[in-house]
Formats: sequence, structure tokens, C-alpha cells
Amino acid sequence: MNTATPWKQLLLHALESNTHVKHSSFFQLATVGANGKPANRTVVFRGFQEETDKIQINTDCRTEKIEDLKYCPFSEICWYFTDSWEQFRINGRIDIIDGSNSDTIKLQQREQSWFASSLKSRLQYMGPDPGIPSITEESSEVFSLDPLAGPVNAFCLLVLDPDQVDYLNLKTNTRLAYRCSRNLNGQKSWTPERINP
Amino acid sequence: MNTATPWKQLLLHALESNTHVKHSSFFQLATVGANGKPANRTVVFRGFQEETDKIQINTDCRTEKIEDLKYCPFSEICWYFTDSWEQFRINGRIDIIDGSNSDTIKLQQREQSWFASSLKSRLQYMGPDPGIPSITEESSEVFSLDPLAGPVNAFCLLVLDPDQVDYLNLKTNTRLAYRCSRNLNGQKSWTPERINP
Repeated sequence: MNTATPWKQLLLHALESNTHVKHSSFFQLATVGANGKPANRTVVFRGFQEETDKIQINTDCRTEKIEDLKYCPFSEICWYFTDSWEQFRINGRIDIIDGSNSDTIKLQQREQSWFASSLKSRLQYMGPDPGIPSITEESSEVFSLDPLAGPVNAFCLLVLDPDQVDYLNLKTNTRLAYRCSRNLNGQKSWTPERINP
Repeated sequence: MNTATPWKQLLLHALESNTHVKHSSFFQLATVGANGKPANRTVVFRGFQEETDKIQINTDCRTEKIEDLKYCPFSEICWYFTDSWEQFRINGRIDIIDGSNSDTIKLQQREQSWFASSLKSRLQYMGPDPGIPSITEESSEVFSLDPLAGPVNAFCLLVLDPDQVDYLNLKTNTRLAYRCSRNLNGQKSWTPERINP
């Protein structure tokens, strides 16, 4: 898989060399809203899906990005590594996996991602609706959670299937564009091209 | 101005408290391309325009973001401060100011932004077309630049006029939404609202 996905090797290497930086697993996810305008927010990398090049993100079903992705399933990640001065722009289609999904394998992946999260992360999905006006009384409420309990309704797994990757290294001033093609079996292959920074 | 733009005070404070962090002036700019898909890349904050709340960005006219902005002038900045754990999402319309602009004041602003850039930054606008395949021979070419010479054709000033700002503080777990309204003279006023993180 790694030889077939050359940018994944670069990304894993960047993650490894920035591992001492807490925010190195944070990136910005751009979507398009139903009003046609772009939206952009910081999210956390939750790993590649098994042996694939698909990127996992956890989110709350009640956030605006879900509405955005239902309107337009395409997204671009911008991931800048502040120590190694590398940028990855990863463009692809996002699959929304919530509790109502009919695919058993996808529901298992959602469950795995839930249990892979810290208890503190899981508790966030039990808070009040994100993005709506705060009622001060409510925000002081304390939630408790059984560590063995499965994902709550609000928990949603997003899986981005990359089509295009733009890699920029500001230290070496090199830039590579990776484009994906698929054979008749749907298998991906990636073609790199050196482009001007 | 500052009392009328409460989020600007927060942003200036964040910039000040993250001043030791080289990348604190970097943020991610999301646009929508003519294909309807989002795009996202890291750019550098070049200050507020004079005493306003408008955000300045320098870019190369030959980059894809210019095509995107001609198709859809709206953008969302996502600016995450890695030390203070604060995020600003700034949504607004972008004005593209290149050398062909007919407005003398805007041309002066473009010139000011050119001279405010380092010589090294300015030299980038003399390189080959960004984003197109590299010709290795060309990339070793050395350009020279008269420090007193005005902006080259490829240099473009972008000015984002904010309409909406979403502020999130991960240390205090507070989130504020700022919405802008304009009076008959076009003067902005901002209304903050506390929303659920």
C-alpha cells in the first residue's frame, strides 16, 4: 500500500518528525455550505482507516459541517506542520457515518473510532447542541459516561477518501502534486508530478 | 474602532501572546472553486488595513485561489493559535487588488503591502508560474530585484472584509459568535453571542 501511496509515506514521516508537537495532529477542514460559501475549522486526525489512504475524523452530528457535507460531500484538508514546514492539501469526498448507517462494517468502524477516543473526548458528545446560544446554567452540568458504553447518537465518523494531494515543503522549496486514477476494480494508483511552488 | 470590533481586540491579544511562535501569523484560507469544490491553503497575515477590521493577504495573481475568488468572492479564514489554544473563523468577502485595478487608493494599498514585504518575499513573485509542472533547469535561475522597484505584475493584494467571526477558546471552553450589521452609511457594528462550543 505504501509504495502505491507515495504521499502517505511523506505524511507519516511528517507526523513522526513532529510527534513532540501537540498540535501536529490538528488540521483545517474546508467545506462548502448550502449558501455556496466556504467554511473552515480545525479538526483532529484520527488515523488512516486500516491499511487504506482514507483519513478519519470524529465529529458531532449536530455541527454545521454535517449540513455542509450533505450539501456538498467534497472537502479539502489543509495540514501544516509547524516544525518541519511541510503542507499537505488533501482533497476528496467525505463519507458521513452516523448511528443510522445501514452498513454493518461502517457501524463497526464508527464504534472503533468511539472507543479509540479518550473518555474526555467522548463526554463532549453529551454536551448541549454545538453552535446554538449558550444557556449558562446548562454549561455547568456535569455528565458521566460508562467507559464500556458504545457511541452516543451525536457521535459521527467522517471518512475522507483522497483524490488529489498537494505537498509543499518550505524548507526545500519543493512542491509535488499527486493525482489519483482508478482501474476497473476501483483500485487507486497515484501519479506524482513536480510543480512550481 | 476597537470597541466597535470586539473580536479584533481578542485577535490582537492572541497575536501578542503568541508572538514568540513563528507560525502564529499563518492561517488557512478556504475558497470555493469553479467546480464547486472547496480549496484550502496556508497564507500569511499581512496586518489589518489601516484602522479597519479588514484583513490583508499577499498572493501571486497566477495562483488558483485567484480563479476561485473570481468565481466566488467569499472565503473563510481558520486561524488556530497553537500556544493559547484559540481559534478564529473569519468569514467575509475578498477584494482582489492587482496592478490593473482602476482605484488609485487601492493601488496605493497594494504598493504599501509590496514595500512592507521582505525582499525575499518579493522575489517569489518573479519565479515561474506557481502550480504548473516544474522545469528543473528553470528552478535554479537566480532573480535580482531593485529594492526601490514597485510591485511586479504577479503581485496581488487580497483584502478580506469580515461579516462573521466565530471565536473558540479551548482552554476556557468558551465560544463566541460575532455577527455584523451595517447602518445606512455602511458602518459596521458587531453583536457578540455566547454559543455552545
